[in-house]
Amino acid sequence: MHIDILTLFPEMFPGYLNESILKRAQEMGQLSIGLHNIRDYAEGKHRVTDEPPYGGGGGMVLKPEPVFAAVEEIVAREQGSKGAREKHPFTLATEGRPPLHPIILLSPQGRPFTQQVAQELAQAERLVLLCGRYEGVDERVRQYLVTNEISIGDYVLTGGELAAMVVVDAVTRLLPGVLGAEDAANEDSYATGLLEGPHYTKPAEFRGWAVPEVLRSGHAANIARWRREQALRRTWQRRPDLLLTAVLTEADKQFLAQLAEEEVRRS
Amino acid sequence: MHIDILTLFPEMFPGYLNESILKRAQEMGQLSIGLHNIRDYAEGKHRVTDEPPYGGGGGMVLKPEPVFAAVEEIVAREQGSKGAREKHPFTLATEGRPPLHPIILLSPQGRPFTQQVAQELAQAERLVLLCGRYEGVDERVRQYLVTNEISIGDYVLTGGELAAMVVVDAVTRLLPGVLGAEDAANEDSYATGLLEGPHYTKPAEFRGWAVPEVLRSGHAANIARWRREQALRRTWQRRPDLLLTAVLTEADKQFLAQLAEEEVRRS
Repeated sequence: MHIDILTLFPEMFPGYLNESILKRAQEMGQLSIGLHNIRDYAEGKHRVTDEPPYGGGGGMVLKPEPVFAAVEEIVAREQGSKGAREKHPFTLATEGRPPLHPIILLSPQGRPFTQQVAQELAQAERLVLLCGRYEGVDERVRQYLVTNEISIGDYVLTGGELAAMVVVDAVTRLLPGVLGAEDAANEDSYATGLLEGPHYTKPAEFRGWAVPEVLRSGHAANIARWRREQALRRTWQRRPDLLLTAVLTEADKQFLAQLAEEEVRRS
Repeated sequence: MHIDILTLFPEMFPGYLNESILKRAQEMGQLSIGLHNIRDYAEGKHRVTDEPPYGGGGGMVLKPEPVFAAVEEIVAREQGSKGAREKHPFTLATEGRPPLHPIILLSPQGRPFTQQVAQELAQAERLVLLCGRYEGVDERVRQYLVTNEISIGDYVLTGGELAAMVVVDAVTRLLPGVLGAEDAANEDSYATGLLEGPHYTKPAEFRGWAVPEVLRSGHAANIARWRREQALRRTWQRRPDLLLTAVLTEADKQFLAQLAEEEVRRS
């Protein structure tokens, strides 16, 4: 996968992108990243990228011209890859201008980013990620240029750069071969939509706090059951909203009914 | 505010932390950051920080000893600041060991991070952010060391580092004086819990797409009303869940009723 990132702060990225699993994915050839400074596409001596908003109010708004120029030049360079169009999983913002790849604005007004969105994006050959800054981005970028908008959460950040890194990170670890087979298998368990239960490693006892007996029993079926129940219990306690969409077996449902009963008895 | 970050990858941070508003906050003296490599607190020649999980399964688990050692040494250095204890806004994980400052594990199992959580954290004098990696962190860290856990969203990342940066970013911009007065005022509008409506800047016409007339009218009351209605409309279309908790006036409710009516008529 190739990911183009458009930003006013390209220096923010290499520190994160060149470590650990993202580094490995690039060395494997599974990921390549193009960092582009929007300012390089701005006109005039001062290369102005932002202006005050029409109608007054605080903050500055990213101008449409440099953003359109940057995206168009970068997308034009990619016209070779025609097969990508068929795979394109997104609704287009406008008719009559089908871009080959998703062009994503990171924005608090976007679709909430979830593991499912990461899985959708991992199917694309290329992504273009556009990072807003300042008070926002001129609305014409949203209406006529980007194909979709993503928000990583309900909080205010100083720009889209961290959101872009989150998308790159979450998507890259889903690309074939990037994680080892063992980790990849673990990924599946997340797909059930539950929070993970506790993990323990050495030492067996630390400051008097012991690892639960069952995990040291070697009894695979008991361990699997314990883990599942711990995951259910934690999800029930901390994020019951996830149980509405989780994939649950009959045994899971019985265990949850038991948790509910315990709670009623305690109250 | 001082923020200590504990991680196995301290090199991931400076690129982001030393730019833009975070850079400014540090230059102003409103923010200082201590980056600590957990590996420096691991024992033995090989400074092992992770081991396979008890009970089998994929991945590696961060060991308890180096994490306890790192947090305890860093917290001990801070004992001078006693006033912080009263301000401490968090429930402690364990009785009898009241840390002076929140010790936060970034984890998919944590409390969902929102703007309200950012506002709570912005009241603290110091924060300790602990970044998990690998398959997870030994459960004893969760039970006996950290005071709370935060998740930035329902997606899987390769570690807690990006989540820590998100927390630092969202909290820092709430510190006094970090944003200019104009931007800070805009912050208030987010507190209403609606998505922002469109912003426009120069040029007034770009490729035939004009800025809405009302924004160029100079009529302040009409502009304010238009903006509010656009925010309501966008929230209604994209994130109706936010309307359940948003602060709404009578006029807002009437406008929403009108949107609902339009929708019924269309269908």
